[in-house]
Amino acid sequence: MKDSKGITAEKDDFSKWFTELMIKAELADYTKVSGCIVFKPRAYAMWEKLVSVVDKEFKKIGIKNAYFPLLIPESLLTKEQQHLKGFNPEVAWVTHAGDKKLDEKLAVRPTSEAIIYDSYSKWIRSWKDLPLKLNIWNSVVRWEFKHPVPFLRTREFLWQEGHNVYSSHEDVTKDRELILSIYQKFLREYMALPGLIGKKTDKEKFAGAVDTYTIELLIPNGKAIQGPDYHDDGQNFAKAYNIKYLDKNSKEQFVHQSTYAITTRMLGVMFAIHSDNKGLIIPPKLLDNQLVIVPIITKKDKEKVIRTAREISKTLSSYNPILDIREDYTPGFKFNEWELKGIPLRIEIGPRDIEKKQAIVVKRNDNKKIFIKLSQLKKEIPKILDNIQDELYSKAESALKKATTKADSIEELKLAINKKQIALVPLCKKQECEDIIKEKTNGIKTLNMPLEQPSLKNKKCIECKQQADYLVYMGKSY
Amino acid sequence: MKDSKGITAEKDDFSKWFTELMIKAELADYTKVSGCIVFKPRAYAMWEKLVSVVDKEFKKIGIKNAYFPLLIPESLLTKEQQHLKGFNPEVAWVTHAGDKKLDEKLAVRPTSEAIIYDSYSKWIRSWKDLPLKLNIWNSVVRWEFKHPVPFLRTREFLWQEGHNVYSSHEDVTKDRELILSIYQKFLREYMALPGLIGKKTDKEKFAGAVDTYTIELLIPNGKAIQGPDYHDDGQNFAKAYNIKYLDKNSKEQFVHQSTYAITTRMLGVMFAIHSDNKGLIIPPKLLDNQLVIVPIITKKDKEKVIRTAREISKTLSSYNPILDIREDYTPGFKFNEWELKGIPLRIEIGPRDIEKKQAIVVKRNDNKKIFIKLSQLKKEIPKILDNIQDELYSKAESALKKATTKADSIEELKLAINKKQIALVPLCKKQECEDIIKEKTNGIKTLNMPLEQPSLKNKKCIECKQQADYLVYMGKSY
Repeated sequence: MKDSKGITAEKDDFSKWFTELMIKAELADYTKVSGCIVFKPRAYAMWEKLVSVVDKEFKKIGIKNAYFPLLIPESLLTKEQQHLKGFNPEVAWVTHAGDKKLDEKLAVRPTSEAIIYDSYSKWIRSWKDLPLKLNIWNSVVRWEFKHPVPFLRTREFLWQEGHNVYSSHEDVTKDRELILSIYQKFLREYMALPGLIGKKTDKEKFAGAVDTYTIELLIPNGKAIQGPDYHDDGQNFAKAYNIKYLDKNSKEQFVHQSTYAITTRMLGVMFAIHSDNKGLIIPPKLLDNQLVIVPIITKKDKEKVIRTAREISKTLSSYNPILDIREDYTPGFKFNEWELKGIPLRIEIGPRDIEKKQAIVVKRNDNKKIFIKLSQLKKEIPKILDNIQDELYSKAESALKKATTKADSIEELKLAINKKQIALVPLCKKQECEDIIKEKTNGIKTLNMPLEQPSLKNKKCIECKQQADYLVYMGKSY
Repeated sequence: MKDSKGITAEKDDFSKWFTELMIKAELADYTKVSGCIVFKPRAYAMWEKLVSVVDKEFKKIGIKNAYFPLLIPESLLTKEQQHLKGFNPEVAWVTHAGDKKLDEKLAVRPTSEAIIYDSYSKWIRSWKDLPLKLNIWNSVVRWEFKHPVPFLRTREFLWQEGHNVYSSHEDVTKDRELILSIYQKFLREYMALPGLIGKKTDKEKFAGAVDTYTIELLIPNGKAIQGPDYHDDGQNFAKAYNIKYLDKNSKEQFVHQSTYAITTRMLGVMFAIHSDNKGLIIPPKLLDNQLVIVPIITKKDKEKVIRTAREISKTLSSYNPILDIREDYTPGFKFNEWELKGIPLRIEIGPRDIEKKQAIVVKRNDNKKIFIKLSQLKKEIPKILDNIQDELYSKAESALKKATTKADSIEELKLAINKKQIALVPLCKKQECEDIIKEKTNGIKTLNMPLEQPSLKNKKCIECKQQADYLVYMGKSY
């Protein structure tokens, strides 16, 4: 029988399961602002972990942090037309301060190109000022009208937005590889998430960019979701915002730019991929509290058991164990609660275990019980935590492999998507073909194309049957 | 003769000097949004230092971080009337999303009580849920119409806002001491800033609070400025937002609350207090780059000098030295630049120094030259940096002491303020007397009252001449 605090929906019923999990595992809460959530301390601590790791890697490659204003005058936002078109319908506008109407309305930043590049155009004069690599950790607002889902689709989310400026396009490419590999490494080593790195088609690229590179992930409802991205902006913004420098020959040149981001959406993807019907499963490296100790108390042995539990807690203090000695709850209730909340390891210790000088260690991810001598705990726990981290990645990786197929016709593509898969599809570069496929298939889109393309010999676009220009992943996207 | 990159205004001409310094030392820049600045990387790195130190101290006393929405519905903001009155004229309102008018306008948070306490009223049920101590690092917008000044008065600024909930008023007081001492310690040990801790009068306290405690600082133009603060909210917000819990006897009770904050304004205060006519002076502990190495290069000895400079840089790598080997600038130009930017120590090394196996170390704060054997650098540099830190604090402390006097009449008070001082003044608790004094003196206000009050025997309110209720600092405030 399920405890009332536990989740009642099953993972197969993804939407219901996911939103219930987010609330009951105390990661998020709804607010009176539709589409905007509270990032509760447990989830925010995971975001802080991401921030600290990614920030350190950014700093190693010369990226510095700064802060730019939240509010952007309409006249700045409208300078790059493609960019504006991409965001305009979703912009939250400040029109008044107190009772006073503002002379010009101000956008709550949906992204900060407009305000940052206005500064860059003042700051950059010479090749000596380049490269300029700034990053901002902030929040952005995009007033989407689709149904909001905690972490995965919220009208405000947290992210970093990096804005680099270079004297050559070569440097854009070089940093692309560095930055995407920082993202990929974090996804893999901390979040235990595999993703598909590739380039977007022109139809799906970022508004204002020349090329967009993304890591795409697949969540258990068969939907693809865009993870971190890197936009090669070429000289588009440089021309719109007039960002020029004098090169070594004193000749005026437009700069080359890139932008890149990772958002709190990734937390949602991680929760969605690893968790199960009992609740959260979180990779240990993302957590402050990596284990919980539950003493199995009998009246007679209460003192001894609690004393031993405390000793274990002390021995394992580097994992910030939760010592759950609450008296008004049964062990079963406690097990359920910590499983719901995704603590990677549970250590049970009762009178009989003490006699045998052992503890029972239960892994959250596969429920396996391991009996470990008390004297061996300190040595064994880190190995088990490492194993969990590896197992989560392997499981997610094989799920992704299983869900990745090929399709050489629209019919095959539809079949794949019905099986909650994504498919690698030959396509020509005409945007029209993508439009038609989307129309015919009720919304199947291109995700991204692998950076190393296989041979395209005999490969025909699945829509127009002309020679294909690339193989590209297609799927339903979240 | 001053270099064109240097500042031309003198510190006595405070406003001009300060704003010029902020721009030329590359701490801030103006933007197209009036009153909103860019926090440039050098300044933002100092903010990050504050965040990391204060955050760690907060976590030690059980405060956790979270994130709440930026936008607050009008109906939530209007629940606590005093609070609303305090902020309403300065609120930036979002009225539209894209082209669509919103059903209810949304405030860009001027502070987050309204949105956070709405969540608290849902989350808190029992004494077991208390205390609840959450902190948020974010930015807030207050559309002031006074003349904006970088860091000191900006329409958007960065801060942390802490929001604690307790079952008893005693706990509010206990945490007040802990939290104010975290602030004070940071101000003292990192920013080298002394401040006056005390309680605000009812007239000057935070909108919605029962009592407000602040650390007040004095900047060189004779203006007092409010630093970090702690508000004892009593049960005011609890009643307005209906935050109740069942106590151990299952009786319903309103919670007790406190809020506390430190902002980027403190950076401005620090720049203002320590710096001089040559530029910035920054306490070393707040900086990534604590020293700069300038090789004095002659044609003949170029290689040897640069090699030695590199060796010094390596020896002192834990201070992140800037090695300035630019060839197209003179040593004098470099000295000026790094003085302007406030690098605490400059190490000069030339051919004759190498012969003597020494380097010349110049302290930014008092321009003193110290000759140090190369073999002793690693041992001596940390001592000199510690000395600078201490000297900055001592200097600021004696300036504060000199500027703090007593006044037993409005005439004496005016005299003190004309001398750019603040004065400890006997006052009764009638708000009317404060109003009249402010009127009569063209704006002199109460700052805060020392927590330990001296005897009030024979002390009369300087306005109504009745028995005084407290001694309180008064001055012009920024």
